[in-house]
Amino acid sequence: MSDKIYRVNMKDLSYKIEEVPEEWMGLGGRGLTSTIVAAEVDPECHPLGPNNKMVFAPGLLSGTIAANSGRNSLGAKSPLTGGIKESNVGGTSAGIFAKLGVKALIIEDIPEDDSTFYHLHVTKEHVTIEACPELVGKENFEVLDAMLERYDKKVAVMTIGTPGEQRMLISNISVKDPKGKLRSHGRGGMGAVMGSKKIKVITVDAEKYKETHLADPEKFKAANKIFTKALQDNPISGEGLPAFGTNVLVNIINEAGGLPSLNFRSGNSENAEEICGEHMAENIKERGGSTTHGCHAGCVIQCSQTYNDEEGNYLASGFEYEMIWAFGANFGINDLDLIAKIDNLMDDIGVDAIETGVTFGVAAEGGLLEFGDGETVYKILSEDVPNGTPVGRIIGSGAGNVGKLYGLVRVPVVKNQSIPAYEPRAIKGQGITYATTPMGADHTAGYAVATNILNSGGYIDPLKKEGQVALSRNLQIASAAIDSTGMCIFVAFPALDDPACLPALIDMINARFGINLTADDVTSLGARILKTEHEFNLKAGLTAADDRIPEFMKYEALPPHNAIWDFTNEEIDAFWDF
Amino acid sequence: MSDKIYRVNMKDLSYKIEEVPEEWMGLGGRGLTSTIVAAEVDPECHPLGPNNKMVFAPGLLSGTIAANSGRNSLGAKSPLTGGIKESNVGGTSAGIFAKLGVKALIIEDIPEDDSTFYHLHVTKEHVTIEACPELVGKENFEVLDAMLERYDKKVAVMTIGTPGEQRMLISNISVKDPKGKLRSHGRGGMGAVMGSKKIKVITVDAEKYKETHLADPEKFKAANKIFTKALQDNPISGEGLPAFGTNVLVNIINEAGGLPSLNFRSGNSENAEEICGEHMAENIKERGGSTTHGCHAGCVIQCSQTYNDEEGNYLASGFEYEMIWAFGANFGINDLDLIAKIDNLMDDIGVDAIETGVTFGVAAEGGLLEFGDGETVYKILSEDVPNGTPVGRIIGSGAGNVGKLYGLVRVPVVKNQSIPAYEPRAIKGQGITYATTPMGADHTAGYAVATNILNSGGYIDPLKKEGQVALSRNLQIASAAIDSTGMCIFVAFPALDDPACLPALIDMINARFGINLTADDVTSLGARILKTEHEFNLKAGLTAADDRIPEFMKYEALPPHNAIWDFTNEEIDAFWDF
Repeated sequence: MSDKIYRVNMKDLSYKIEEVPEEWMGLGGRGLTSTIVAAEVDPECHPLGPNNKMVFAPGLLSGTIAANSGRNSLGAKSPLTGGIKESNVGGTSAGIFAKLGVKALIIEDIPEDDSTFYHLHVTKEHVTIEACPELVGKENFEVLDAMLERYDKKVAVMTIGTPGEQRMLISNISVKDPKGKLRSHGRGGMGAVMGSKKIKVITVDAEKYKETHLADPEKFKAANKIFTKALQDNPISGEGLPAFGTNVLVNIINEAGGLPSLNFRSGNSENAEEICGEHMAENIKERGGSTTHGCHAGCVIQCSQTYNDEEGNYLASGFEYEMIWAFGANFGINDLDLIAKIDNLMDDIGVDAIETGVTFGVAAEGGLLEFGDGETVYKILSEDVPNGTPVGRIIGSGAGNVGKLYGLVRVPVVKNQSIPAYEPRAIKGQGITYATTPMGADHTAGYAVATNILNSGGYIDPLKKEGQVALSRNLQIASAAIDSTGMCIFVAFPALDDPACLPALIDMINARFGINLTADDVTSLGARILKTEHEFNLKAGLTAADDRIPEFMKYEALPPHNAIWDFTNEEIDAFWDF
Repeated sequence: MSDKIYRVNMKDLSYKIEEVPEEWMGLGGRGLTSTIVAAEVDPECHPLGPNNKMVFAPGLLSGTIAANSGRNSLGAKSPLTGGIKESNVGGTSAGIFAKLGVKALIIEDIPEDDSTFYHLHVTKEHVTIEACPELVGKENFEVLDAMLERYDKKVAVMTIGTPGEQRMLISNISVKDPKGKLRSHGRGGMGAVMGSKKIKVITVDAEKYKETHLADPEKFKAANKIFTKALQDNPISGEGLPAFGTNVLVNIINEAGGLPSLNFRSGNSENAEEICGEHMAENIKERGGSTTHGCHAGCVIQCSQTYNDEEGNYLASGFEYEMIWAFGANFGINDLDLIAKIDNLMDDIGVDAIETGVTFGVAAEGGLLEFGDGETVYKILSEDVPNGTPVGRIIGSGAGNVGKLYGLVRVPVVKNQSIPAYEPRAIKGQGITYATTPMGADHTAGYAVATNILNSGGYIDPLKKEGQVALSRNLQIASAAIDSTGMCIFVAFPALDDPACLPALIDMINARFGINLTADDVTSLGARILKTEHEFNLKAGLTAADDRIPEFMKYEALPPHNAIWDFTNEEIDAFWDF
């Protein structure tokens, strides 16, 4: 049986199961979500109004045994950036959608009666849409428990906490991972879009799914073997990430002078030693927990971990570099355990680690609280945000809006989305990605850190402008394609350095669908996705003036290299010449 | 002695007095401020950063005896809209600037030491820039008193209160009027720009000024006589406005079904009878006070007033329709005296009546307070806003940002600036002005109410689309020209209906400068100003997608006419075809 489009209308609480249109057949993940959003959503619509849509789509290889293919994409017009958004996630949703034959789940409109929230349950034959007043006001772990009590324990769960219910722009959508913890569609305020549609939780039936059909199982298996080996042989995906997790980056980026600290005042953090991956691994060794954990089935990198407190009690999982950087270096909390406690709280209420962390940095710049005051952060996130107090609403609105409330100039956002853990002044290729990606500041859109810092795919001096625009462009095109396969971003390392890796990936796609894609086809696909997204943004009212790093970085020199952001507008705008 | 450009640099606290460049000679008011901003300000700069500039310029006829010529223009990039802004004001500053020979005062950059605020004093020969720590944290009336103690009582005073110091986007710049009360450069967050430059108060010396030179005094006098008669003979500027003030409009607009009520939910207000101009005039008659008051010397309309409480004690002056609508109809306070008390408080702290009133409506929509709860409004404006509490910061950020904090769709702003007291769905010509003016929603930019409701300049059905785009275009071109003369907006009524009015106005300009402008020249000037402003906005990153009425007005029908906003994008965008 072929895949279908599942289309839900929240206005009249109805659904349809549709054939996949010819032109969407070869698409998956980001390629599909961006294509559908561009085709069906009015770029000028209010992102929280009836005319926005949410589109979930597993990657082309999701649901197969391909290593690291478990990412699920979510597309919509973002209420944070005002542009198109694709936010992808690990967890179990991609595999279950794919195995159930859900090519995409499209959710339209908003209920006429907005007095309660709804629970959507997707099965092979039906979508059940029922009011769930008993879940309103609950946070994610409680919702997850309720779903696990009701359904098979393999059920896919996508849920929002109280920030999402309140349509806060820092809110994300949390997704159950293989161990019953949570991952998230983190960026772009996707939780607010789900909240605006009055959807509290989406579950996807895992009982009736079947194995994903492969056109050529033998070819698939052979290609996957080569692909897996490439992942395991690579020094970053095969050694660094499994040993220390993503947090291996704290020391590396700090040494490069590109670890944004105290609201982007320096590229070095005084807290690096306390919060780095090496210290974290030591703690895990001493206290129990685990340095390796995969966010989705089939992951061979296992960059995530479980982190315990001094008594050996569970504190957090999925405790990643961006989180630790945002609260440790950029906001200045010098206590890894407290950051872990905050991380787990944020999983529970469902807010984006990067947006929330950078927001606290900007709030400290504005005087709402002191840099490094983690206890107040915990109080705000556990009391003010869930209760929607004025302080909760302020933090819930994201860094750009807090900057406006406090009349600040030093606000590290692009397209109103917070800049992640790599300083654009000191890692300039990454700055070009932040400036130009249609997603708003996003490190995963074109991870130039690879070639600027990690010597992956060659080396381009991070402090010099030469070659950065072309580097970012190539990486963004490749990433758009990879985001369509369901693959995790870290396959980029072997893909850049191991000539066997990309052909094996393409062979798997061909063996899955019985087609004959070439490397050029994949590049074309990536380029086409980027252009589609860019065009949506232009129609939505974004312009070249939005492809800019914050102005203060042009005149405020960043220690230790005293680097400034020195690209001209013309140099940046040349990004789109392809 | 010819006029000069006074240029202050706040970075090194220096100034220069420069000759007027040839190309700026024939410009004044809005024509000059917009030209200078477009020529000298990077459209992509942060409005609160060092690269924005403030440009004050009196109108071409300011400083003369011409009736109603006392408006002063202020230009900058707006931190509220992100586009160019011209905000003009009555009061005494225009006349004193003009008589002193200040063609424009340009203020650049921000101080390196931002630990205090500064007082700028402009005399014929010098600009004194001195720290004024004793004024920091004071509100406008206290600052005004301090200046009147120090200088000649005719001194021009431009000041910000604590919201401006805190760079809040609702903050305005207050200007002394002839009776020692305050008028304001109200819209676009100009107080925040002054606060970002760390300027608390600007005074302009009135001792050394001389009469403005007239090239042909006799011709000037004769033309002014005709012009004044046209103002006095017109039923609106000569009768309605003097009798009831601007607030005569409450009943008129309510009857037309276009008085936005309870955050733009209806075009009728239940409070109309309590807050209307007729009731206000009755109160004034009973309690003392005055129904007539001119905001600047030479005004023959006298649309302003002084309003007392039941005991006959002064409550407010400059108590205008927009204020009374915003708090009475749109926020729902059913007590004119309380609105007057709030008005006076807002004069004191220096916040825009329209932006602040609409912000409270949106905050009520979001649940921060109840519609109609004027006591809480008073508390927030007297305590939270001056002290910059979280609630104060929220209200201080304006309606658009509050909408983002609370995840709301019903947010009545265009280009992030609040829509004034005329419903775009029910008075469609005015809607076209809100959508297209480069200023963000602004009723004075092209007052189509005149022809849609007041039968001035003919009649075009307010509920129909036909003719509205052309009407708004003609009015916006005329207004841009009028805003360059220093004339008050209300000269538009006789200008539209009395064939003697505009030629007399042009004769005055010609007699002032010894030139030979024609009516066509004036139209060309207006068109050129609009295009200059529009081009600045495009470079700043605004697009046609910003020339839009809020989306909810397209699908939510407005009582009593059940009107929706039904212009297509193409119809709106045709505005710029000239």
